[in-house]
Amino acid sequence: MQCFVDLRSRLARQTLPGVHLHTACGEHLQLAAVDVDANAIVPLHNHPAEQAGMVLAGTPEFTIGDETRKLTPGDTYIIPGNVPHAVKAGPLPVRLLEVFSPVREEYKF
Amino acid sequence: MQCFVDLRSRLARQTLPGVHLHTACGEHLQLAAVDVDANAIVPLHNHPAEQAGMVLAGTPEFTIGDETRKLTPGDTYIIPGNVPHAVKAGPLPVRLLEVFSPVREEYKF
Repeated sequence: MQCFVDLRSRLARQTLPGVHLHTACGEHLQLAAVDVDANAIVPLHNHPAEQAGMVLAGTPEFTIGDETRKLTPGDTYIIPGNVPHAVKAGPLPVRLLEVFSPVREEYKF
Repeated sequence: MQCFVDLRSRLARQTLPGVHLHTACGEHLQLAAVDVDANAIVPLHNHPAEQAGMVLAGTPEFTIGDETRKLTPGDTYIIPGNVPHAVKAGPLPVRLLEVFSPVREEYKF
């Protein structure tokens, strides 16, 4: 049982241009350290898994459903399953700690 | 739908001496901002919900199952359901971002 998880030492996967994920998962939860380069964009998308997270660095602009907000470190969000969402990093690199439930099979790497 | 969640503005509940939680939940996920006073202790306990988190501040000593480690900010962990775990804050106040799945009914406040 590996409970102390060093996300940064895990394999990084580029999922979009300028977007890198390091993930680890349990049975119900999947943690993801997400790095988004300055000016990179995660376009509007959705998925069945619920998603929550906290901004650790940067000032990303998040769109969730029909609401858009500029976030700063310490801000948190919960995105219900299947709700469209997008992220624009803006001028600074962004680091997020995110969690998905249920586990997303495509992010098991 | 309230997706942008200001955990700090939510009601804090003292769950143990020196331990305060602010929580918010979706359908599968429950976010918790956990503040542990310097020298406070979360004694060994377990619960069916899976738990994961990141240390945001402080240098807590975590015991998960039969392993004990001193953690520092940025360290992450995943605790399977029903596995005993404990936290000793040590000399500094500790702040954690934690997540539970499934949602713990007793932490809905």
